[in-house]
Amino acid sequence: MKYMKKSFSEMKAYHSSLITDGIILNANESPYQPPKKIIELFNEEIKKIDFNRYPDMDEVELDKAIAKKFGIDAECVTSGVGSDELLDATFRAILEPGDEILGFTPSFSMYKIFAELTGAKYIPVLGDENNLFNIDEMIKMMNKSKAKAVIICSPNNPTGQYFKKEDLIKLIKSTNKLVLLDFAYIDFAEEDYSKDMLKFDNVIVYRTFSKAMALPSIRCGYALSNKDNIEMINAIKAPYSVTTLSQILATIAISNFDLYKEQISLIKSERDRLYQEFVKLGFDIYPSQSNFFYLKMDDKYNEILEKNKIYIRKFKSGIYRFNVGTIEENNKLIEVMKNAKKWCN
Amino acid sequence: MKYMKKSFSEMKAYHSSLITDGIILNANESPYQPPKKIIELFNEEIKKIDFNRYPDMDEVELDKAIAKKFGIDAECVTSGVGSDELLDATFRAILEPGDEILGFTPSFSMYKIFAELTGAKYIPVLGDENNLFNIDEMIKMMNKSKAKAVIICSPNNPTGQYFKKEDLIKLIKSTNKLVLLDFAYIDFAEEDYSKDMLKFDNVIVYRTFSKAMALPSIRCGYALSNKDNIEMINAIKAPYSVTTLSQILATIAISNFDLYKEQISLIKSERDRLYQEFVKLGFDIYPSQSNFFYLKMDDKYNEILEKNKIYIRKFKSGIYRFNVGTIEENNKLIEVMKNAKKWCN
Repeated sequence: MKYMKKSFSEMKAYHSSLITDGIILNANESPYQPPKKIIELFNEEIKKIDFNRYPDMDEVELDKAIAKKFGIDAECVTSGVGSDELLDATFRAILEPGDEILGFTPSFSMYKIFAELTGAKYIPVLGDENNLFNIDEMIKMMNKSKAKAVIICSPNNPTGQYFKKEDLIKLIKSTNKLVLLDFAYIDFAEEDYSKDMLKFDNVIVYRTFSKAMALPSIRCGYALSNKDNIEMINAIKAPYSVTTLSQILATIAISNFDLYKEQISLIKSERDRLYQEFVKLGFDIYPSQSNFFYLKMDDKYNEILEKNKIYIRKFKSGIYRFNVGTIEENNKLIEVMKNAKKWCN
Repeated sequence: MKYMKKSFSEMKAYHSSLITDGIILNANESPYQPPKKIIELFNEEIKKIDFNRYPDMDEVELDKAIAKKFGIDAECVTSGVGSDELLDATFRAILEPGDEILGFTPSFSMYKIFAELTGAKYIPVLGDENNLFNIDEMIKMMNKSKAKAVIICSPNNPTGQYFKKEDLIKLIKSTNKLVLLDFAYIDFAEEDYSKDMLKFDNVIVYRTFSKAMALPSIRCGYALSNKDNIEMINAIKAPYSVTTLSQILATIAISNFDLYKEQISLIKSERDRLYQEFVKLGFDIYPSQSNFFYLKMDDKYNEILEKNKIYIRKFKSGIYRFNVGTIEENNKLIEVMKNAKKWCN
């Protein structure tokens, strides 16, 4: 790329074709549409939209609705184009070229990219032989490194590990550095402890409408923190980035969060069923508090899945992630894997 | 802001409350909704959306529809969250901290911010005493400066100046540096010369759905260039940033661009009428090939406008910009200004 600056010479465009046919378990999406009532309310609101006007740059109604759900002040909320935009804005706000940020690895791949886009380095902190991460290890690394911040994903994408509230608080209290907490999948975990984290001034929590709320199509996420940290993100993120349609649909969704409870608990029970089945079949699958699983398996299984139009995420040879589908999709997945085991053994 | 990096200590969040009542002429928006047929087609498509799936990260259908309009290859197109995201991605791709980029001033205020976000400097090139810019002056500056690129807005926001095609080509041919051309408002000008610029490998053209296409609500813009430059932008911009709803509506809009012709020509004729009226009233107004005017006037006129619920953009004391409204809105604006002239003189 002729005009790309030298320090970015390794950057490459990532392309991925949209799969619309088959059983799609590769993007940690919800297998369910949002509850009907939410789409109905949205359809009513669409009729009133002034398409020829810019969105509300301060997402006032949306941020208010989010704040209400958590029982916090609306000034402690900001919204963006997925939590991605807010993570990117935070990294840009705090990291100078040459700076460092710590994160467990493997984790969400964009952390490293967002760090590199600022000229900073993402320093990976590894888990044990089972990819299980240890908070004390992170505290140790934090104290001896020059890293400006640490980012933790709980439950962690792609391994599914959920950190105990007490462990996170221990880490937060052990440092003055900024602790970024990506809770994209926390609605699938034991407890949503987002609000407990907001007692601390060195914490920013990131959430999304793309997972439990089944709205990745509208690209909307939000950050929760004290007013000062939220203003820092607002100073960097692009004005007017969240579309009017996304603001409206997200506002309706979070104001009616209770309507999601049924599909979320179904996803959780299906997750537990899938885990049992995969263990029974002898697969090297990780326990998960999320809507997906990390899986080590021979690539031949993936070939069989693809032949059956079941699409899961391949990180590299032998390393996979797949998310929970509908009951029917999960049945089909289990059936195909059972047969594959027979043939492959 | 406690955690903001030192080099960004001057960065501030910009807030602006959404005005929904009155005559709103402050954001260069179209006063008209998109043609009915376009919204009808969109309403049909909405019914088929899988809200629980991510958007197409490569915006295949949208980029194809854009490419078709210009008679170019779809690989020479990429879309983003307004042209803003694509400008930001370009600046990030090409500018190292300490680098420079040239641009006429006053122009779109985000250029300077996008430059500063990369740690680079935006070097302003001024016009004459009437803020009229001269391409030869820019060529001179380009040749003697270490700037990596130049950005030009035609018609220029906020002054309305439209550069002749020959002048732009002269500038492009005079340099190997990257020439970024922001044509957000070009549908209101004499000629849309976007395609003529694509013959040159050192050019990227930026366009938007927010102005003549009356869709700022969906935050969608696009860039046109050679494949290499488009891949450079794709390597930096966030994946999945354009929502499914925005991709669908933008695809419908650009595939039916002819439907906009009537409202665009009405805006142009109203622009010409407003210019004549303001000149007649003795205002210091700039001729414009866009849908807005740059205006120097005493702040007391703005006070009177606000009392009449007419909202225009104030840059600083004495310096304003307002866009063309509907016929009725323009009549009201002229009437209020006429009366204000009587009282104020």
